Amino acid sequence: MKLDDLQIVLVETSHPGNIGATARAMKNMGLCHLTLVAPRCGIDETAIARASGALDILDACRRVDTLPEAVAESELVIGSSARPRSLGWPELTPRRMADMLGECADGQRASLVFGRERSGLSNEELQFCHYTVKIPTAPDYSSLNLAMAVQLLAYEIFVRLQQENQPPMDVPREPKASAGELEGYFEHLEQVLVTTGFLDPAQPRHMMKRLRRLYQRIGLTRNEVNILRGILSSVQKYRKS
Amino acid sequence: MKLDDLQIVLVETSHPGNIGATARAMKNMGLCHLTLVAPRCGIDETAIARASGALDILDACRRVDTLPEAVAESELVIGSSARPRSLGWPELTPRRMADMLGECADGQRASLVFGRERSGLSNEELQFCHYTVKIPTAPDYSSLNLAMAVQLLAYEIFVRLQQENQPPMDVPREPKASAGELEGYFEHLEQVLVTTGFLDPAQPRHMMKRLRRLYQRIGLTRNEVNILRGILSSVQKYRKS
Repeated sequence: MKLDDLQIVLVETSHPGNIGATARAMKNMGLCHLTLVAPRCGIDETAIARASGALDILDACRRVDTLPEAVAESELVIGSSARPRSLGWPELTPRRMADMLGECADGQRASLVFGRERSGLSNEELQFCHYTVKIPTAPDYSSLNLAMAVQLLAYEIFVRLQQENQPPMDVPREPKASAGELEGYFEHLEQVLVTTGFLDPAQPRHMMKRLRRLYQRIGLTRNEVNILRGILSSVQKYRKS
Repeated sequence: MKLDDLQIVLVETSHPGNIGATARAMKNMGLCHLTLVAPRCGIDETAIARASGALDILDACRRVDTLPEAVAESELVIGSSARPRSLGWPELTPRRMADMLGECADGQRASLVFGRERSGLSNEELQFCHYTVKIPTAPDYSSLNLAMAVQLLAYEIFVRLQQENQPPMDVPREPKASAGELEGYFEHLEQVLVTTGFLDPAQPRHMMKRLRRLYQRIGLTRNEVNILRGILSSVQKYRKS
């Protein structure tokens, strides 16, 4: 993939300085698409000062209300996470993440998502991420500044994509499903599982999380999502037959 | 070498925020020795705010008047440089620099030297550096924030030195399903798909191949296979209910 196919997504950022410093960090590493999800601050003079010459990125940044909206068109969504997660989300090192992006076919789009300064991404927001990435740090002081985290991951990606402009040695691939198409599948799946009695609507959470994790890590193609939804539809029609 | 044998040296830094952010970046990556050469600012509240919890590093930092004094006890001195130097100083990538430090014997001491925010290190100061290191950046926007540069190089060093000491930080994994368990799932799946009418028994082949390919590439765990079979059983019971 190309640097131009990657967007940086900041969720509910509180400090303008971090937005500015993120823009600068992005521009240093050849990235230009920034999306702010429900920012808790404006782009003020602190943001502009910290952005240094990267005002074009601030000017062009997109604002949306929710994370699903931000990542709807991405085939690959990676969330940055400092905490180990009990559910064992597939966790990448920054270098592995860069390799994974490097192996994506041209034209695939990806999002790299960063949470709040203090609390990061919520478990609910992580549901929309196909992978998490954790920056290794000293064990007793693991909280990186937000823009620093953006800088480190953008650097790993830049180095990886620069290094090898060679095409991946993979056969031409079918187009991947977008995050929005995956969400459509999960909704359909949940509906059917409630109908068949597999899922108890009183406490559905845990099971859907496990299923999301399972299907998100496959890298489903659009055709495959259509097949899986065809199966769900056949179950829905089945009873009436 | 060990992280404890490396010092970060900042030459004539102008912005207190950069000193604070450098302390935080260092602490994140397990570094603790900071030396300021003739700083152009004090450690004020901005520095303290940006240092976040890394005040111990600010408290312990050493101040000296000249670069030779700062690096006098180091066996290896590496200067960070954004500009290509006409003199053709031996220039390392950050990863090569980390390798070089990783290959130093225990007990050897090294310094990593960063110049002024605007103008970097002078050619005269570079005379005291055995190597230079250049962080790769987008060609049209190569000026990194000072603390960001410290963060990136400290990260490369941390990852390199960690690598040797610790196993990779992978989440403990659940046991994978065996091939036999997967086959059991595929048989069960085929049965159900024929029952719901999704699969035509007259020509079932192609669809099952696609589904096998899909599920085989996930690396399903035993628990996940049990969940998927639970779903199939719920569909089988569904009609009778």
